[in-house]
Amino acid sequence: MKTLKEMIMVAQNRPNKTIALACPEDHEVLQAVNEAVNLNLCDFILFGDETKINHIANEMNFTLKNCKVINALEKEGACIEAVKSVSSGQADVLMKGLVDTAIIMKKVLDKEVGLRTDSIISHVMVMQLPKFNDRLIFLSDGAMNIDPSVDDLKQITINAVNLARSLSISRPKVACISAIEKMNPKMPSTLKCHEIEQMQENHEIVHCDICGPLAIDLALDKNAAKTKNIKNPVAGNADILIVPYIEVANALYKGWMFGCENVKSAGIILGAKAPIVLTSRADSHETKLNSIALSVLMENKE
Amino acid sequence: MKTLKEMIMVAQNRPNKTIALACPEDHEVLQAVNEAVNLNLCDFILFGDETKINHIANEMNFTLKNCKVINALEKEGACIEAVKSVSSGQADVLMKGLVDTAIIMKKVLDKEVGLRTDSIISHVMVMQLPKFNDRLIFLSDGAMNIDPSVDDLKQITINAVNLARSLSISRPKVACISAIEKMNPKMPSTLKCHEIEQMQENHEIVHCDICGPLAIDLALDKNAAKTKNIKNPVAGNADILIVPYIEVANALYKGWMFGCENVKSAGIILGAKAPIVLTSRADSHETKLNSIALSVLMENKE
Repeated sequence: MKTLKEMIMVAQNRPNKTIALACPEDHEVLQAVNEAVNLNLCDFILFGDETKINHIANEMNFTLKNCKVINALEKEGACIEAVKSVSSGQADVLMKGLVDTAIIMKKVLDKEVGLRTDSIISHVMVMQLPKFNDRLIFLSDGAMNIDPSVDDLKQITINAVNLARSLSISRPKVACISAIEKMNPKMPSTLKCHEIEQMQENHEIVHCDICGPLAIDLALDKNAAKTKNIKNPVAGNADILIVPYIEVANALYKGWMFGCENVKSAGIILGAKAPIVLTSRADSHETKLNSIALSVLMENKE
Repeated sequence: MKTLKEMIMVAQNRPNKTIALACPEDHEVLQAVNEAVNLNLCDFILFGDETKINHIANEMNFTLKNCKVINALEKEGACIEAVKSVSSGQADVLMKGLVDTAIIMKKVLDKEVGLRTDSIISHVMVMQLPKFNDRLIFLSDGAMNIDPSVDDLKQITINAVNLARSLSISRPKVACISAIEKMNPKMPSTLKCHEIEQMQENHEIVHCDICGPLAIDLALDKNAAKTKNIKNPVAGNADILIVPYIEVANALYKGWMFGCENVKSAGIILGAKAPIVLTSRADSHETKLNSIALSVLMENKE
């Protein structure tokens, strides 16, 4: 898949999955739900205050077709029930509505009824940038893991590779990002990048090509790669950008979204038993919809 | 100054400063020199292989008016002489041509004839982004300081504030960048950001307003700041972005340059006795010229 529009169309044409949405009592959240069901992206189970949900739906003329509503008056309770519906297999994806991320993630990580796995949980931003009409760019991890160890980076990479493969990119090219291309003990991120590159060479990470350390220009731009004589096939062609610290990806995707024109995105949390959609008030309507479509296309490829 | 074009015009209209350029024996470097002198941005003293310089100039029909050529056959020798001409006051700015950054910076830091000060040396990228037609964005430090301490960040901030003030931004707004807006010991960059913010409140850093920690969206975008109810005047209006790790600014400016359309930039090294221009082969012709203009406008405002 080369564009987010293409991604929406594929999601429309696949049999509907079900999203369990906790705390949807909010105009913008329900607007995204309404549009998702009208586009035939998925079905929903809405866990929240039934009276408020119906009131907003009536006020806004939302049909909310294919939406089951389960009454849950407390936010924590709504989160628990939404998480349970995913862990029981009733729903395929978990989505956050008007509730703090910390509250819902606590339920996700709950040992009894949660969605933990052995893997770490990581965030991927899928970006459509104006300069690249030939591919989507996957950026991880700008929201969950602050200072990932090499083992964490391994799993972050695996999660992102699985996501790219779910979007038909059969052998994604992964760039491990640093500020320079050579290993330098004074810049520890270069050493971590190199270790991840080695893991692909040793077949610890599969179904992808990895090059690191690489700076962003060499990861994304063919001319820059040519000027610096970097012959690795990932250079200039990276699909996935894996960063050493949360601030790097966070700045990069926000810098793209808020500094440039015509940038589109979708976000997703991976590594739990099911994909998680954590859209926030600040996300545009389009981003919310893209994130919903992305979540229903994610398949565990391992 | 709101645009780089404006910056070029101001540099044209000021009395010419002199740039000492080490190792200019390269078509692209001399093309930048030729255009700079034709635009009346500055004068040059060229330290390098006189025969090669003249050969390229003749071949390319470069007038090289206002360029004095000092013959220096070895790159190290050319660098030493260029640095000496700046430390003696003969030239106002140091510029790197076709020579490794490490070689010229070693001469800059030379205790005998170099350009050291008590301050640390830092890099600033001045960006013109399509979404912001009302201001330039100053990004530091994506090239020199890998993991700056709070004291380093203080000087990095002061250097960037001096630069912005040299471009007539009399009281720059500084955002100290992290991934979140609240202090969190698990994310050390938030604590460093807060300390820098405090330094402005304590008048250790002056002539600016500082807010941190702030994520990029809240630093740059007024709507994002409004949605999250951040009332600080820097939020949504930042001129200067100070980052916690080199990889953050490096990824951000390269992400902007290589991911988006119509992004323009100028780079400069500050904190030595004089500004330093370290353009590389990978820089576009326009970026080289912008960097030259930026360097001759830089004034030490302390």
